[in-house]
Parts: sequence; C-alpha cells; structure tokens
Amino acid sequence: MNDANTRHTRAIDTLRQSFGDKLQTGQALRDQHAATLTWLPQQPPDAVLFASDADDVIAAVQIAAAHKMPLIPFGSGTSLEGHVNAPLGGLSLDMSRMTRIIAVNAEDLDVEIEAGVTRDQLNSHLRDSGLFFPIDPGAGNATLGGMAATRASGTTAVRYGTMRDNVVNVTAVLADGQLIRTGQRARKSSAGYDLTRLFVGSEGTLGVITSLTLKVHGIPEVIRAAVCPFPSLGTACAAVIEAIQLALGMARIELLDEVQIRASNAYAGLSLAETPTLFLEFHGSEQATSEQVAMFRSIAESHGCLGFEHAQSTEARNQLWKARHSIFWANKGLRPGTESVATDVCVPISRLADCVTETKADIAELQLVAPLVGHVGDGNFHVQVLIDMANAAEVARARTFLERLARRALAMAGTCTGEHGIGQGKRGYLADEHGAAVAVMRRIKQALDPDGLFNPGKIFP
Amino acid sequence: MNDANTRHTRAIDTLRQSFGDKLQTGQALRDQHAATLTWLPQQPPDAVLFASDADDVIAAVQIAAAHKMPLIPFGSGTSLEGHVNAPLGGLSLDMSRMTRIIAVNAEDLDVEIEAGVTRDQLNSHLRDSGLFFPIDPGAGNATLGGMAATRASGTTAVRYGTMRDNVVNVTAVLADGQLIRTGQRARKSSAGYDLTRLFVGSEGTLGVITSLTLKVHGIPEVIRAAVCPFPSLGTACAAVIEAIQLALGMARIELLDEVQIRASNAYAGLSLAETPTLFLEFHGSEQATSEQVAMFRSIAESHGCLGFEHAQSTEARNQLWKARHSIFWANKGLRPGTESVATDVCVPISRLADCVTETKADIAELQLVAPLVGHVGDGNFHVQVLIDMANAAEVARARTFLERLARRALAMAGTCTGEHGIGQGKRGYLADEHGAAVAVMRRIKQALDPDGLFNPGKIFP
Repeated sequence: MNDANTRHTRAIDTLRQSFGDKLQTGQALRDQHAATLTWLPQQPPDAVLFASDADDVIAAVQIAAAHKMPLIPFGSGTSLEGHVNAPLGGLSLDMSRMTRIIAVNAEDLDVEIEAGVTRDQLNSHLRDSGLFFPIDPGAGNATLGGMAATRASGTTAVRYGTMRDNVVNVTAVLADGQLIRTGQRARKSSAGYDLTRLFVGSEGTLGVITSLTLKVHGIPEVIRAAVCPFPSLGTACAAVIEAIQLALGMARIELLDEVQIRASNAYAGLSLAETPTLFLEFHGSEQATSEQVAMFRSIAESHGCLGFEHAQSTEARNQLWKARHSIFWANKGLRPGTESVATDVCVPISRLADCVTETKADIAELQLVAPLVGHVGDGNFHVQVLIDMANAAEVARARTFLERLARRALAMAGTCTGEHGIGQGKRGYLADEHGAAVAVMRRIKQALDPDGLFNPGKIFP
Repeated sequence: MNDANTRHTRAIDTLRQSFGDKLQTGQALRDQHAATLTWLPQQPPDAVLFASDADDVIAAVQIAAAHKMPLIPFGSGTSLEGHVNAPLGGLSLDMSRMTRIIAVNAEDLDVEIEAGVTRDQLNSHLRDSGLFFPIDPGAGNATLGGMAATRASGTTAVRYGTMRDNVVNVTAVLADGQLIRTGQRARKSSAGYDLTRLFVGSEGTLGVITSLTLKVHGIPEVIRAAVCPFPSLGTACAAVIEAIQLALGMARIELLDEVQIRASNAYAGLSLAETPTLFLEFHGSEQATSEQVAMFRSIAESHGCLGFEHAQSTEARNQLWKARHSIFWANKGLRPGTESVATDVCVPISRLADCVTETKADIAELQLVAPLVGHVGDGNFHVQVLIDMANAAEVARARTFLERLARRALAMAGTCTGEHGIGQGKRGYLADEHGAAVAVMRRIKQALDPDGLFNPGKIFP
C-alpha cells in the first residue's frame, strides 16, 4: 500500500466517522462518479460524500486537506472533458443534495441558490413568478454549481450571455476550509478583484462552490420559433453573420448540419429536409418579435434560404427544442455501439463559415461519422464524433480530427473550447491558446491551493 | 537620503539613460500625474515616463523591478479615488502616447487598440464604419486602458454592460517583465481561468495593460431621447424599477435630483423644472424605439410623472447628454472655491429608492451641498459633495456622510463603489464588503507582484 493509499484510507475512515451514511464507497456508485460521457478512461474516486450543506463541505475539505487527499466537486456528471475523473483517487464531493432555493429576489431579478440546484429545478420553481433562468447547455439536470464551474453557456448565450455574465456572486470553500463570498448583490461593482469571474470557469480547481446568486430574466411576452433550411453551411453562416451585425436580437440561433438533421429526424420524429438548417427563436413583445422575424426572414432569403417555417404552437416549438436538446442521444443512435466524443470550439464570427467548412471537409477526408451543430450566433460549434473503438485506424483518425479542429480554431483567433471547458481532454491546448498566461494561472492555483488537492489533473498540462 | 530614495534615484538614472526625453522629472508634470480630482492629498511620483509601445513598458517594468521602485500606470488621470497617486514615490508610467488603433474587425464587432486610446478617439475613428464603443463614464478623454483598470461603466451600462462585459482580452506586462495576453478574440471561451476579468478592475496592481480587444456595437438605426420630471425621487425610482423588470431595453436612464437640475440649468443653459428628473435614451429600430418610448411613458405616467418631453433633434439630444456629462464641472460651479468629492455606490434595484431617500435625508441633516445623480437602471448613483475645506466642522460632516453612504449601500447588499473603484479613498470598506475574500485577493496580488511594486497603497486596506 503506497503512501497516497494510506493517507486516503485514513481520510476516508475519518470522513466516515464524521458523516456516517453520507459517505459511500461502493464500486457502482464510485463508477457513476467518474467521467462517463466521453472516451476518456473512467477514473473513479476512492469514495463519494453527499454533502447536505456548506458545513459539510467545510468539514470534508478540512479532513481531505489534513490527509492531503484530492477532492473533486461533482454536480450531475454531465461535463464532457473528464472534469469529474479522479486520476489520483480521492473524494468525489457530490453536491446534488444541496438543492435549497435560498431566496428569489423578484424585484432585483436575481435568485440565491445552493450549488446542487439544477437548471430544470430552478425554472420549475420560478414558473409562477414570471421569471426564468435562460442559460441552457442542453442537459436539464446540470447543476448550476457545475455550470458555473465550467463557465457553461448553450443555445441562448447569443442573447443572455454565458454563466460568466449571469453569476452575480458565489460562495466557495477554499483549500484551507475558509468559506468566502465573492461579492454582494449589486448588478455591478468596482470593489476589488473580480473573484466571481475567477471562480466561474475554474473547474473545481480553486474551491468548492456551495451557493450562487444568479441573474434571472422576465419570461418574454412572446416567443416565436422558426426553422430555416439553407442549401449550404456557407450561406447559413453568412445569414447569421449579417443578423448579428444588425443586432437583430435573436434569443437562439442554432445551426444543424445535414448529418445532424438526419439523426434528429430519426430520433425525435421530425421530418426536416436533410440540409444545413437554422433553428431560431425570438423573445420580446408582439411587435418586436414580429419585426425581428420579418427582418431575419428577409436576410435569410437574400442568402438563398430554402424556406422559412414558423413553429406556430407552443407544442411545435417545444418539439423543436426538445429535438435540439436530445442531439447527444440522437447522435449516439446514429451509429449504435460506438463511442461518442462531443467536442466544441469557438471562433470570431467572421471565421465561422471557414472554420465550419474546413471542419466538414476534414470529417469527409477522415471518413468519420460526426454530426455538427452550433450556437452559431456566438461563433461556437460542436462536433460529436462517433467512433468504432475496435477499429484502431478509425480511432487514430478521430484523434487527428480533434487535434486539427482545436488547432484550426486557435489559428483563427478562436478558442479550443467555447463552453465545455478544458478538463482532462483539452489540457494539451491550453498553452497554445494562452501562452505565457498559463504561468499566471498556475501561480493563482498555487496561491489558493498550494497542495494541489482540488480537482488535480484538470486544466493544467 | 533613505534607502528607497537611493533606489528610486538609481532607477530614474537608468531610465533616463534608456529613454532620454521620454522620462520627465519636472515638478509641474509630476504634480499633474498625482490624483487631482478629489480631496485626497496629491502624492506626485518621482518621475513620469511616456511609453511609446509595449517594449517601453517592458523595459520600464524591468528597471523598476530591478531597483524595487513602485510603478503606477497612468491613463488620463480622470479617476476619482486617488488611483494615480504615488504614496511611496516611484514612476508614473504615462500611457497616453500609446494611441494606435491596431485593428478594426468590423465583421466580428471588435477592435484591437493600445491602452492609451481614449473613448472619444476610438469613437471618432469608428464613425465611418457604422460602429461605436458604448461605454461612457462621462470623461471623454478617459483612456480605454484606464477604464478597463477601474472597471468603468457609466450612462449606457444598463444596456451595454460595463468594461467587465466589453473587454474581450487584454495584453499586460507583469511584474517580472513578461508580456501576457489573456485570451483570443472568440466571444466566449471556457479555456482556463478568466484572466481578462481579473485584470479588468485590478487598478494597475497586477500588471500594466498595454493593449485591449473591445467589443463594439452597430450604431443604432434610431436614437430617441426624452426628459421625464417626477414629483419625488421615490416615484422616479419606482418607474425605473418597473421598466427594468419589464426589460424595456433603455440604453440610458439617468436620475438627476433637484439640486443637480439647478446646477445643470445654470452651467449648461437648460431650463428644466427643479425637480427629480430622468434623462432617457432608447436605441433600436424605428418601430422598436417607438414601442419602448410609448411603454416607458405609460409606466412613468402611472407613477405620476410631471411631463414627458422628447429631445426631438440630434442637437437637442446632444445638449441633454452634454449637460449630463458636464455635471462634474457644473457642480463645482454651484459652490465656487470648495473642494469636490465625487463618490458612488450601487445597490440592488429594489433598495434604490430607500438608499437614495435615506441619502438625501442625510445630506439635509448634515447640511451639505451635494447634488445626486444616478445610473439608476443599474442601482448605481453618485453624490458630489462640495466642501468648504476651511470649515473643519463641515469637513467632518462630509466625512460622516461618505462613511454612512458606503455603509448604507453595504447594509442593503450593495457595493461601496459601482464604478469608481477602491483606489485609496475606499480601502477602508473593502473588508466590510468582501470579508474573508480580501485574503484571496491579497494572495493573488502576492503571487503576481511579490514585491508589491505595481500601484502600491491602492485597493488593499
């Protein structure tokens, strides 16, 4: 038994004494707390602790720190780059029982919640208040603490921003067990360093987020959705660029390529033409949304769109977005038995058409099955590669594809990840993207977590 | 001659050898580089260096570091909390000659500029492109590097956000002379810690910002402005709150109290009734702005507004905002010979009316002359106290007022400064606002600037 194992065993014994049944070490549960949604090796923790409140988190961090045992915050496990893996073992700190809605400040358009609240839970809670939380990364059961930790965004970021823009403050437990709060509830502040934005996107490496204050928004008076097919990805992207430049104010503008449409037709019972297609949504008053729709339609027609179909009823609209949100599972169905790797990049919008076109050519050249879908208003798109793991040549081609995609985005002044995060999967690109700034990130990590106990093996190469 | 003096003298000799005439030590110029717009003692630097480019900044930082001499970045000196003072002497690094517009990426709605570009210069440069940079802290000659460093905002933040939201990346020189860039040009990224937001608002204490990429926006098709007087501050605030909750999308919504209206009437040749008044602006299409104006007017009338006057012509609109922007000087004219202290706080909007009303009562009780004006859509307001420095009792009352105002905002879950920054003037409130999180800020400062050379005596108590 090596030194780390001894320390971890002692830490887990101590945790069990403190926490009783909240601490679990069964293999099945530990496996569920490893990264499961990608092809990265699953690395389960030594134990899982279900925290009930911030005091539990503080106590767990203190015990882990005393025994120098790694601690990995866990929300609902929907991250895509291996964020919740435990490469050095240690404790998975499961936040999913911390689901208290602390306050709904309707006049201030903000809510205070515990980190384990999911976005579906929050929106259910808000339904009668006329408010909603717009950030929508797809997974409805994603916890808001996890979404903050990965700086998540999704389909509505083009209008409402990302978690960066919608987190007002967080409380977090640091490596020394201290609980801090990164700000008050004012909409803006110039008082000191922006620790809120430092914790948003820190992937659990600087502290454990225990609660958050989030901006919420009034449910729009009118929501209109539409489907707009194009003859090519290039024309679809050109329409998006023009609409963005005119500040049309779309709430959602999603591009699905023809492979994605085929998969979604099959999985979600749609019957769309298999051609690059935009799914659109507009939020606002009757008059404002009518004007937006008319303007967008005119732009789309000038770029040769093949149609423009309104999703008139709420039911039709819900079907559309349900289809969009089930893409991950639809794509897995496209090629049963394969491994799925969902990746994302983001580029300045002027380079979007080039980046998408080159990426599609690459998919063809490398003979991959890889539907493409994008939050194209942000210049952000995803490719989900479906890989036959028994075919070593195909696995190698998939690796080549992912590498080329990240480097293509970086070469276009973009980022290797717009919203999934670095985790384990993209550590190799951090230095390419940030150069000497990586050393600054390391110094911050060292200053706040000198023993490197919080989510080790993530972000940094 | 003490040790610091010896070191500074040697550093300045070395700088003079490297930089020749770019280094200046005349008393008048040094005095201009101290904080001059507030009642804080002026603390001039030992020397001023006019940097031409990032290489100059790197060389200056290296020389300062070698001699452990403080270095204070200087934009145009319009900050209000003593940010540019040199309490320990040292070098003022004047960035005002770094005025290169590096790139205008019109399709991507961003620009790359050197840190000494002012917002007026940028907007003049952009005029023919159909784009503009909206952030508007009042001072047209504020440099964009300085605005980033203080996390500035101003009249348009209610629609366009603050510098936090509009800086895409910065390049900065660190204490070891290393030049870093905090990100690429993608609109969003989840790759690593958000160093951009860490440098925005760091007040020159972590590094010297040498260039920035900023978001720019299309000039709106239609701009409508209006003036809307109310019988009381409470009714004006209530109208603002309702409009914000309905997401009306005002581009500006400024509250001026009756004292401010009197000062602005006198200084800017307006003839407004001396009563609390909103200055409004709406940006968008013909149809959208018409709808917004009609909706706002209806809200205002339901709260008993005393009128609603459109500023129909561009000339009338410009006169209105010129009056708004000349408030600082208008107020100085209200009581000639006095010292002016401009302070700001920001609270959740539900507490705005309370905070403003209690503050007005305090001004009356303490017998101060102190016009109040606010970016009320953000819950942010300013008080400019005009103080007879020969009257010790009045000076003491002014101190009491400023202290009570900051603590009132904090007690209402707000911040001691919404946009001016901490500088020297508000260091006493940092711990009240951030508690244990101040220690985290200190650890970051220590990690990036271990010798404490960058803008010492600012932010931290």
